[in-house]
Amino acid sequence: MLDLLIIGAGVAGMSASIYAARRKLNFRIISKDIGGQTAKSSDVENYLGVRGSGAELTAKFMGHLGDLGVSIEANKVVSKVFKTDDTFHVELMDGEKIESKTVILAAGKIPRHLGVPGEEELYGKGVTYCATCDAPLFKGKTVAVIGGGNSALDAAINLSAYAEKIYILSDEPKFRGEQVMIDKVSADPKIEAIFNTQTTKILGTNFVEGLEYLDKISNEKKSISLQGIFVEIGWMTDSSFIDSSLVDLDEWKQIKIDLVCKTKTPGLFAAGDFSAVPFKQSIIAAGEGAKAALAAIDYLTAK
Amino acid sequence: MLDLLIIGAGVAGMSASIYAARRKLNFRIISKDIGGQTAKSSDVENYLGVRGSGAELTAKFMGHLGDLGVSIEANKVVSKVFKTDDTFHVELMDGEKIESKTVILAAGKIPRHLGVPGEEELYGKGVTYCATCDAPLFKGKTVAVIGGGNSALDAAINLSAYAEKIYILSDEPKFRGEQVMIDKVSADPKIEAIFNTQTTKILGTNFVEGLEYLDKISNEKKSISLQGIFVEIGWMTDSSFIDSSLVDLDEWKQIKIDLVCKTKTPGLFAAGDFSAVPFKQSIIAAGEGAKAALAAIDYLTAK
Repeated sequence: MLDLLIIGAGVAGMSASIYAARRKLNFRIISKDIGGQTAKSSDVENYLGVRGSGAELTAKFMGHLGDLGVSIEANKVVSKVFKTDDTFHVELMDGEKIESKTVILAAGKIPRHLGVPGEEELYGKGVTYCATCDAPLFKGKTVAVIGGGNSALDAAINLSAYAEKIYILSDEPKFRGEQVMIDKVSADPKIEAIFNTQTTKILGTNFVEGLEYLDKISNEKKSISLQGIFVEIGWMTDSSFIDSSLVDLDEWKQIKIDLVCKTKTPGLFAAGDFSAVPFKQSIIAAGEGAKAALAAIDYLTAK
Repeated sequence: MLDLLIIGAGVAGMSASIYAARRKLNFRIISKDIGGQTAKSSDVENYLGVRGSGAELTAKFMGHLGDLGVSIEANKVVSKVFKTDDTFHVELMDGEKIESKTVILAAGKIPRHLGVPGEEELYGKGVTYCATCDAPLFKGKTVAVIGGGNSALDAAINLSAYAEKIYILSDEPKFRGEQVMIDKVSADPKIEAIFNTQTTKILGTNFVEGLEYLDKISNEKKSISLQGIFVEIGWMTDSSFIDSSLVDLDEWKQIKIDLVCKTKTPGLFAAGDFSAVPFKQSIIAAGEGAKAALAAIDYLTAK
């Protein structure tokens, strides 16, 4: 029986593991991948004290964990979380069953889809949700980024090193996101923003060939020929593996927590992008992970 | 009229300033000192991605801010914060008056006092609240640390490099705090823990000469001859400079906030040790500062 199981090894889970290790808890940290969304970011400039690519930050974080003897168990996907009496039961896709006194849910977020014809069919064939992963594949091509916030701006800047021409299609009349990034995008001659649009269809048979959108001002249907589509319209969490009686969800299906990451179930905590905290930022996830671990330690100490 | 005034340049305020700078807000960051409690820590080992002395972390953070063009205005003490219509008015001890659309309160915490005879009289004469600042002054001396949590353990470890003998007097039957630190203290032959005590008096005329305590098990009054007393019994916040109608306080007089650092007054935010978040940790303050800044940006955008 573990003291603590941390599910997820993004920034929130890694930060939690530092506190668990220093407190010498009997704990494990399991995850689908390592570094979560941070690892996939092109550049992280707003994590106080550490700057660099997502990969560089992740390497630094892993070094920190390694020095404390923490090793992340990757490629572990959770299929079920439920509770009997004071014990949490966690079942993995590979058949393993884990018992723990406390659990921190830090499984991160997954990209939101457009939900238009052609999107699922052409996923991996020109449709992608990760500019950092896939930008280099579009050297010399014409691409579109769908979205208008920081993620979309970051994707466009990232793509500018490879693609010939980048459209940004936003459904709003202007960009949201940080002014430094808006300035960078506006100054880039390769990038062309088209506002007030609604993407309606992705075209192509074996590979993306174009997209159709509605111009919401003129109400005209328009199309663009292109080879790549980067969908950056936000994120959602998938908490379907958790017994629904253990947590309350907000309107975006994120897990509700209090100031110290407690869910409504004693011993069960949520941290980082997986929780209802609205701002999805690495430094925030790091703080939330630390809070969740300290709250779990308080819970264990009080037992 | 500023968009944002950040009061306090500890980790919370510094992290907030990164977001404000990248968003190109018209803002200032004013503070009594730079680096807050983090700067006074001997070693910070649990801030994901950055390790070192408090001074080293603070230097790294200052470099980050400097590259973004943020300069902290130090030696600025706030005497009053109030609001008329949509404007916050902030008055400083030096007579300056600042107006701002939003304010982030990140003024940190101050050490709690024992409240025993001799304490105020001998402050700076052997009684201190900062081991990192004052440990080197006690080379070859006998000292006591009062407290039983992480701060007390950290102080004792820090003192071990200088003092001849270190007592730790705790009012509890065992240490609270991280197991790695408890192990370090327990293995140190210079350090002797005395549990179940209540410090009742500090002795000395021109300088500390000893202390008296009650042994809570035997109910005997005992005394120790020593030259230094490091009080590490926790912290409090001083929010007396804020118009009390603007904020709600918890039982420890800390400012109540919601998940994104909002106080009960629109446009007014609190972050880090100054807020009601119970865990006083650098990485948590960094996350909270980022949340407060993003919440302030949302507020400004919605106006």
